[in-house]
Amino acid sequence: MNTLDNQQLQQMAHAVRALSVDMVEAAGSGHPGMPLGAADIITVLFGTVLKHKPSDPLWPDRDRFVLSAGHASAMLYATLHLAGYPLSEQELRNFRQLGAVTSGHPEVEQHLGIECTTGPLGQGIGMGVGMAIAERAARARNPEGIDHYTWVLAGEGCLMEGISHEACSLAGRLRLSRLILLFDDNNNTIDGRGSLSCSDDVPARFRAYGWETLEADGHSYAAIEAVLNEAKTKDRPVMVRFKTTIGRFSPLADSHAAHGSVLGAERAAETRRALGLETTPFTIAPGVTELWKSACSRNAAAYAEWQKNAHKTVAKIDEAQLEHLVDAYKRDAAGKDATATRAASGEVLSALTAGLPNLIGGSADLTGPTQTLTDSSVAFDDSEEPAEAPNYIYYGVREHGMGAVMNGIALHGPFVPYGGTFLAFGDYMKPAIRLAAIMGQQVIFVMTHDTIAIGEDGPTHQPVEHFSAYRSVPNLLVIRPADRTEVAEGWQVALQNGGRPSMIVLTRLPVEPVFSEYRKENLVAEGGYLVVKADGVPAVTLVASGSELAPMKEAAKSLAADGITCDVVSMPCLELFLEKSDAERGSVIRGKKVIVVEAASTPGWDRLVPGDVSFHAMRTFGASGKKDALVKHFGYDARSIDAAVRSRLA
Amino acid sequence: MNTLDNQQLQQMAHAVRALSVDMVEAAGSGHPGMPLGAADIITVLFGTVLKHKPSDPLWPDRDRFVLSAGHASAMLYATLHLAGYPLSEQELRNFRQLGAVTSGHPEVEQHLGIECTTGPLGQGIGMGVGMAIAERAARARNPEGIDHYTWVLAGEGCLMEGISHEACSLAGRLRLSRLILLFDDNNNTIDGRGSLSCSDDVPARFRAYGWETLEADGHSYAAIEAVLNEAKTKDRPVMVRFKTTIGRFSPLADSHAAHGSVLGAERAAETRRALGLETTPFTIAPGVTELWKSACSRNAAAYAEWQKNAHKTVAKIDEAQLEHLVDAYKRDAAGKDATATRAASGEVLSALTAGLPNLIGGSADLTGPTQTLTDSSVAFDDSEEPAEAPNYIYYGVREHGMGAVMNGIALHGPFVPYGGTFLAFGDYMKPAIRLAAIMGQQVIFVMTHDTIAIGEDGPTHQPVEHFSAYRSVPNLLVIRPADRTEVAEGWQVALQNGGRPSMIVLTRLPVEPVFSEYRKENLVAEGGYLVVKADGVPAVTLVASGSELAPMKEAAKSLAADGITCDVVSMPCLELFLEKSDAERGSVIRGKKVIVVEAASTPGWDRLVPGDVSFHAMRTFGASGKKDALVKHFGYDARSIDAAVRSRLA
Repeated sequence: MNTLDNQQLQQMAHAVRALSVDMVEAAGSGHPGMPLGAADIITVLFGTVLKHKPSDPLWPDRDRFVLSAGHASAMLYATLHLAGYPLSEQELRNFRQLGAVTSGHPEVEQHLGIECTTGPLGQGIGMGVGMAIAERAARARNPEGIDHYTWVLAGEGCLMEGISHEACSLAGRLRLSRLILLFDDNNNTIDGRGSLSCSDDVPARFRAYGWETLEADGHSYAAIEAVLNEAKTKDRPVMVRFKTTIGRFSPLADSHAAHGSVLGAERAAETRRALGLETTPFTIAPGVTELWKSACSRNAAAYAEWQKNAHKTVAKIDEAQLEHLVDAYKRDAAGKDATATRAASGEVLSALTAGLPNLIGGSADLTGPTQTLTDSSVAFDDSEEPAEAPNYIYYGVREHGMGAVMNGIALHGPFVPYGGTFLAFGDYMKPAIRLAAIMGQQVIFVMTHDTIAIGEDGPTHQPVEHFSAYRSVPNLLVIRPADRTEVAEGWQVALQNGGRPSMIVLTRLPVEPVFSEYRKENLVAEGGYLVVKADGVPAVTLVASGSELAPMKEAAKSLAADGITCDVVSMPCLELFLEKSDAERGSVIRGKKVIVVEAASTPGWDRLVPGDVSFHAMRTFGASGKKDALVKHFGYDARSIDAAVRSRLA
Repeated sequence: MNTLDNQQLQQMAHAVRALSVDMVEAAGSGHPGMPLGAADIITVLFGTVLKHKPSDPLWPDRDRFVLSAGHASAMLYATLHLAGYPLSEQELRNFRQLGAVTSGHPEVEQHLGIECTTGPLGQGIGMGVGMAIAERAARARNPEGIDHYTWVLAGEGCLMEGISHEACSLAGRLRLSRLILLFDDNNNTIDGRGSLSCSDDVPARFRAYGWETLEADGHSYAAIEAVLNEAKTKDRPVMVRFKTTIGRFSPLADSHAAHGSVLGAERAAETRRALGLETTPFTIAPGVTELWKSACSRNAAAYAEWQKNAHKTVAKIDEAQLEHLVDAYKRDAAGKDATATRAASGEVLSALTAGLPNLIGGSADLTGPTQTLTDSSVAFDDSEEPAEAPNYIYYGVREHGMGAVMNGIALHGPFVPYGGTFLAFGDYMKPAIRLAAIMGQQVIFVMTHDTIAIGEDGPTHQPVEHFSAYRSVPNLLVIRPADRTEVAEGWQVALQNGGRPSMIVLTRLPVEPVFSEYRKENLVAEGGYLVVKADGVPAVTLVASGSELAPMKEAAKSLAADGITCDVVSMPCLELFLEKSDAERGSVIRGKKVIVVEAASTPGWDRLVPGDVSFHAMRTFGASGKKDALVKHFGYDARSIDAAVRSRLA
C-alpha cells in the first residue's frame, strides 16, 4: 500500500542527504560519503517497508533497524528526525558535540530509535543476528504479540570483518528468515577502491552460508522497494546487494575521499544545489517534513491492533524467583565438598534456567567444558516455529559472533543472554564485550578455565593478562567466585545488574570450599568482605579471589602461627567493592599493608615504587604441565604465598 | 618420484597414530581424535610432498607446515620425531609435562620443526597466509634462493573462526598460489556433529574468495598424494577438503567424544590392536623408523643444490643503518613545531623504509590515518612475480587477519612486519597480539588515535582500557612516545628488540614538543627518565607518557610556583623501565609520593587503599566532542592535572 511516488521519495531522500551534509559541515568532522550514497535505501526502508511507530520507539513488536556502518550516523539521525522520532533539529545541529545524543558514531538510545551502538565495524551485523534470534524466541513465547523483522545496513568494511563470517554463518545455520542484510556496495573503502584489498564474490559467499541473495540498484526507488518486499518473503536470511555511489550528488561522488572528509562550505553548497535545494544549512524542501511524517504513520493500524491485544511488557528476570532459587541452592550447597567453580556454575544454572524462562544460554563450542547446558535447555534449530520455546544456542567455534549476538539478544529483550567460553578466548570477543559495557547491556559472559591452574593445555589456553584487561573495562562487573556459595551469589549479582554486563570467571579444576555454612545475605554483592579477621589491627591484609582464596587462607594460618597477624579478604568483585564508601571499604581493608594475591598479571605500575599495596602476580605467560606442578612453579600454593607475604613484609 | 607404496604409508601413518595415542595416555590428557583421523594426511605430506630437511629444520627455503588445529599437537610431535627432527622419544613420553617442549598445544620451536604456536583456533591459518606472503616477498628479493610452499592443516573449528574469513579473503585477493590449506573435515566439534552449529558449504565459500578447491578421501594414500601434488600446480590458493574419520581405529571413531578425551588403557590397547601393532606404548612396527627416515631424506639433492649457491642468512635489520637513520631524523626534528605523533611516525617510517628493505608494512584500511605508507612502499598485488619487491599490504578492514599475517611474516623471516590500526581496534586482533608475545616474535603494532583526545569519533573509537590491557601482556613492549624525538627512539627500540613484539601508541592530533634539543642517546630505551628535576627531594614525582606529558610539564610549573616541588618523568615504555635495577629506577623516581597521569583506566586495585602511588585515570568510557572539550571534561588539560595533583597531596 505504498502511496509515495518516485518524486516524493526522492525529495525525502534528498532531505536526508542535505541534513547529513549540513551536520558534518556544522561539526567540522564526520562522514558524508555513505549518507549521500545510501539515503535512497534508508528512505524507502523507513518510508515504505519498516514496521515502526516513531511516536513509540520502544514498541516491542517494531522491526529493528541496525546501522552496522556506524560512521553513517548523520544519515541515521537525519532519518529519525524526519521520520518523527523525538530527535530535534537542535540535536542535529549539535552533531558530534559533547553532551549531544548525536555522537560521532551512534550510541544506543532506543527511545530515540537508535537501536544499538555501532562504529566498530561488523558488530552491527552480529547484533542484528542476535535480534533476529531474540525475535524468534519471543515469538515462540508469545505468538500473538511478536511478528517482526530485523534489518541491518552494512558496508564492505563490515563484511570484511571476521565477525561477519561468524554471525552470518550462524544465521544461515539457524535459517533466520526474519533477518535481512542490506549491503551498501559502493566499492570504496578508506584506502581506495574496494578491489584494492578485497575481491570476494560476496553474494556467493552468503549463498555458501545458506542465505538467499538479491540485488538491486540502490538509487532506483522502485527497485529498492520491490527488493525489500521480496526479501521478506524468503524462508532464509537474505542479503540484498545494492550498488550505490558513495558521496552521490557531491563533487566527491564515487571517490573514497568522500568517506570521511568534510566537504567544506563550497562543496556542501554545490551538493545542496545538485539536490535541487536551497544552500541554507538545515533547510529542506517545502512539504517534505509532512511527506516523511505521513509516510511514517502508515503502521498506525497495526500498532493499534497490537495495543488492543494489550500485550504487557515482560520483565527480563523475576527478582523474587531469582532470590528464591539462589537461596535454595546456597542452603543445599552448605558443607559440600570441593568442586570446580565451573561445575558449581552448572548446578546454579540448572536451577536458574528451570525457573527463569527469559535466560538464553549458549556456548562457543564449549558447552560441556563451560557447563552452560542444563536439563531445561532447548536448542534453537532451523525452524521459525519451533515446537518448544528455545533458550540455548550452539554458537559453534565463534566467540566473537557469540558476543555480538548476545548483545543483540539483550538489546531486543526481554531476554538475558549468557554464553560460555574459556577466559583466555575472551580475547576473541573483546570488541563485543566492550560494546556490551559501552551500551550498558545485561549480558553475562561465562568464562571458565581461569589461570595457569587449568594445567596441561599450556600458555595459549591460560589467561594471564585477562584479569587486568577486563577489570579495566568501565561498566563491566568481573565476578570471580571462590566456591559454590559465591558462585550462586555471583549469578545473582549478574542477574540483578540490569544496566551492565557481567563476566563470571570460573575454575576448571576443583577448589576447596571456603564458606562451609549457609548464609542468607549475598556477600558477593558487597564486592569484598572479611573472611578471616585478626584480633586488633592486622600486620597485613591479604586479598584474593577465586582459586587463590583457599590457599591464601591456609597461608594466613602459617603466618599467624609465626606472629604475623593477617586479615583475609575475599574480593569476588572489585568493581562493586570500589563503589562502596570509604568507611565501608575501610572496615574491610584494615591493614596498612595490603598484599593482593592473584595468578594473573598487572599493568606493572604497582612495581614502580615499593608501596603499601603490593601484588603477588604473574609476570610471564604460563606453561604446559600438571595443575599442581604449575601452581607451585608459579608460586600460588599456600607455601609459596606464605613466602611471598613474608618477603614483602621484610 | 614417490617410492612408498600404500602399505608402507599405512605403516608410517599407523606409527603416528600409535605414538599420539600413547602420548595422550601417558599424559592423562590431550586430544587423540584428530591425530587418529588426520595421520594419513600428515604422513603423505611429510613423507612424499613437503620440501623439508629434518636435519636442518631452519633451512630458509623449506616448505612451511602449520598445524592450525593445535590440539592435534601429539600428531605433530610424533611426526617430527619419526621424520628425524631432533625431537626425542623422551620428549614424546613427557608430553604436556612442565619443562617439556611437547606442550599441550604446539609452542614455536623452529629448530625442532614446530613452525609456530597454535591452539587458539584459526590463528594458524592467518599465520600461514603471512608465511606465504613472506615467501613471495623473499622470492622477489632473492629469486634463486627462495621457492617454496606453505601448508596449513586446519579443522572445522579453525574455519568457523572469523579470522579464517579475514585471512583467506586476503589470500584470495593476493592470489597466493603457494598457499595450500588442508581441511580435515571430520564433521565433529566439541559440542557434537559439525552440523549442530554449522551448515556452510565450505568449498563454495572458498571459491567466493577466489580460491581453487579440491576434494579427496583423507584415508586414501593415493588420493592424498595426487591431490597434494595437484594443489601445487594451481595459480591461486588452494583449499583441499579431506573427508576423514575422527578417532579412526579407536572405539570412539566418528564420535565427538574422541576429540579431547583420553581413551583409557583398555581402549588405547584396543586401538593399537586395530592398527595391527603391539600394545606396548611407544613401540612401533619394525622397519617403520627407517621408512620414515628414508622418506624424509628425499630432498637431499635439492638441499645440496640450494647450499651450493651459498645463500647467506639475511639479517632482518641492519643495526648500523637503523642507528644512522634514527639519528639523522632526530637531528632534523630538533626544535620543530607541535605535531601529531602519528605524523612523526610517518616521517620516521619514510626514513626507515627507504633504508631498511626488510620492513613489511601495511594497515587494516587505515593507511592514511595511521601514516604507514611511505614513498618507498610497494604494494603486494595478485602476482607471484611482482616487478618490484613488494613491502606493503593493503590488509582491508581485517585487523585480526593483519595481526596473524604479521606473525606469519615474522616467523617466516627475514622480515619485520609493522601494521597500523586505531588503538581501540587493537581489540579485534588481541588474540594475534597475544600470540606474538607468547612466541616472542618481532612484530610492530602501530596504534594511532590514542585516548579521548581523538575527539568527535566518540567512545567506540576512544581507547580507555587498552593501556592496562596491553601493558599486562607479558613480553610485549608498549611504547607511547611524547614527541618526534621519542617517536624516532621508539621505533629504534621496536626494531632493536628482535625477541618480542612492540606496540607504538600514537596521537591523532598535534601535541607540543617536549624535547626541543637534539640528543644522541636513546632515552626511550631507558623506559622512563627525568624531564624536570626539582632541587632536592621533590614533594611529588609526576609520571606520564605521550600526550599527557606536555600538559603535565605545564602543571608542574604552576605547582612549583606555589611551592609544590615536582619531578616530571616521561615514561614512554614502562616495561623497559621495570627491567632496570632498583638503583636505576630510584634515581628516576625520587619522590616518595608518585602520581601517574594517564587518560586511561586501571584495573582498580590502586583504589583499594590510599597509597603513595596514585593514578589520575579514566573511570568511564569517553564521549563524542571536540578534543579540547573532552580533554578538559575528563581532566587532562594542565589546569585539571594541577588540581588533581593538589587534591592527592592534600
